[in-house]
Amino acid sequence: MENEQIVFAQFPDGLPDEQTFRYEPAEIIEPKQGEVLLETAYLSIDPYFRNGMIKGASYVTAFKIDQPIWGRGLAKVIQSKDNTVKEGDIVRGLFEWKRYNTMSAEDIEVLNVDDDIPVHWYLGALGATGQTAYHGLLEIGQPKAGETVVVSAASGAVGSVVGQIAKIKGCYVVGIAGGKAKTQYLIDELGFDDAVDYKKENYAEALAKAVPNGVDVYYENVGGTVANEVFKHLNSFARIPVCGSISNYNDKEISYEPAVQPILIKNQALMQGFLASQFKDDFEHAEKDLAQWIKDGKIKTKTSLVKGFGNIPSAFRALFTGKEIGKQIVQVSSVLD
Amino acid sequence: MENEQIVFAQFPDGLPDEQTFRYEPAEIIEPKQGEVLLETAYLSIDPYFRNGMIKGASYVTAFKIDQPIWGRGLAKVIQSKDNTVKEGDIVRGLFEWKRYNTMSAEDIEVLNVDDDIPVHWYLGALGATGQTAYHGLLEIGQPKAGETVVVSAASGAVGSVVGQIAKIKGCYVVGIAGGKAKTQYLIDELGFDDAVDYKKENYAEALAKAVPNGVDVYYENVGGTVANEVFKHLNSFARIPVCGSISNYNDKEISYEPAVQPILIKNQALMQGFLASQFKDDFEHAEKDLAQWIKDGKIKTKTSLVKGFGNIPSAFRALFTGKEIGKQIVQVSSVLD
Repeated sequence: MENEQIVFAQFPDGLPDEQTFRYEPAEIIEPKQGEVLLETAYLSIDPYFRNGMIKGASYVTAFKIDQPIWGRGLAKVIQSKDNTVKEGDIVRGLFEWKRYNTMSAEDIEVLNVDDDIPVHWYLGALGATGQTAYHGLLEIGQPKAGETVVVSAASGAVGSVVGQIAKIKGCYVVGIAGGKAKTQYLIDELGFDDAVDYKKENYAEALAKAVPNGVDVYYENVGGTVANEVFKHLNSFARIPVCGSISNYNDKEISYEPAVQPILIKNQALMQGFLASQFKDDFEHAEKDLAQWIKDGKIKTKTSLVKGFGNIPSAFRALFTGKEIGKQIVQVSSVLD
Repeated sequence: MENEQIVFAQFPDGLPDEQTFRYEPAEIIEPKQGEVLLETAYLSIDPYFRNGMIKGASYVTAFKIDQPIWGRGLAKVIQSKDNTVKEGDIVRGLFEWKRYNTMSAEDIEVLNVDDDIPVHWYLGALGATGQTAYHGLLEIGQPKAGETVVVSAASGAVGSVVGQIAKIKGCYVVGIAGGKAKTQYLIDELGFDDAVDYKKENYAEALAKAVPNGVDVYYENVGGTVANEVFKHLNSFARIPVCGSISNYNDKEISYEPAVQPILIKNQALMQGFLASQFKDDFEHAEKDLAQWIKDGKIKTKTSLVKGFGNIPSAFRALFTGKEIGKQIVQVSSVLD
């Protein structure tokens, strides 16, 4: 039983590459009273990590050079010195990117997993991804039946859930994604009302056609040109939950966009940046809703499940090159199979 | 008794000038049943008019070429054919820029003016200006005692009231204004905790010093560089009521500013554009608060009162050249003296 970790090796210049990460051996730390030893099974690979790789970033996820990177994951309890957690329990938490983590039992969540649902979904539609979609859309977006909801990065982990929740709420849902395969997936498999390909030259025109009644809620994952075109169609009192801005994350310099203030005033519109964590008091309630919708077949998700701890850098890069559909997860070990 | 009106003559190219407006004779229209004939006493001159002078604007105040411009004003009832309004009543409403207007009694508000307060304040701190300050700050900004509130265009009509209400609510208040006279006025006369001169070269540095605890509420009137520096100091869960963006109003092309999405996410911050009208159900309550604060000496205001219907174009320009402090009002006639 040997441990291994991935540390943040250097600040990326633009798109992160192999040099951003460094693999190195690590010790296995014997748990003390109140602690548990965990074997990592799955790690969630998310675009927001990129925010923590900016020099001087004061972001909640800021990583430190030569220190392990960390993010959400699922693990199995190998050894427990806490009486609330048993060996063999499946747990979720913020883990350092290691094969084995030793943590306080207070910092992990013991899952009561549903055997009908693949366990890695507890990092996706039933995890932080689903929570991010749910609260951003429902708490900030406040969609009403009949309204038009537009979501960008719509075939991505969060966006695909956002659109399906908006459908459940009776909205007219338009997804924005890159390429024919993704837009077809949104319409044919996820039941979106329409989808627009932002990579096509006629993006502005296609978007205008797709939202004849304007836009009431724009769930923002992308920023840049994709967003600026949506802003032209906002209705009065539009709401814009700002979940991400992936088009900006790899910019070497600050991106300049049309000033947003005149747009917000003209439409009496609201834009609100958020992290799922601010809604944590309501996570349990949301998880119940999400699980029910999944069982009812109202929320479908796709996972790009990559096997092997060594494939994390390439899985992370894939988020920005737009190759994959859905949630990116790396399976580190088969301990939960 | 002769009538005269000001029509929107042509779209301004940048800063509006004399050619933007055209004076012409007008008829006095005999009121029908349910209508009143009004003699204009005061007209409010506001930066937001500029939004209505943009080709293709779908803004609530969009003006039409060769049609009268209109805005808030006070008038005296000269003749009434409605039994809810009497001759001699003082009324407030959205008036066309004419010496005499004939309107439905339903579209005007009969004021019960307080003799201790100059009547033109009913266009300022006790009118739409005060309502804009009050609701934007309190409903959207949600300031809590001890928090830092920053307001731009702080010596202006709305900004000066915003800062004083924030002081009443126990906040630490920093105003941004152009020039020594204005910043001194904010500190010495209005009781702001600090004030920063955006026209000075060291603006960024001076602002950083003025907000050692970051910014919880930024009441936005200006946009551009002034705003972008404030954004660097936002605290988590900051709120930004967007009332105006005067730095952009005369731009001949769209202004490009750093993308706001990453800023909003990083700080889990909210930006909301608004018009005072969306809070109209609460105007009465707000007016009571404002009147009380004015009587208690907690809200002071300055008015730049220009006499003469012919001086409207220059009063409007003065809003953008930053020469005047406080509320801009044109006294059209002495009918309410």
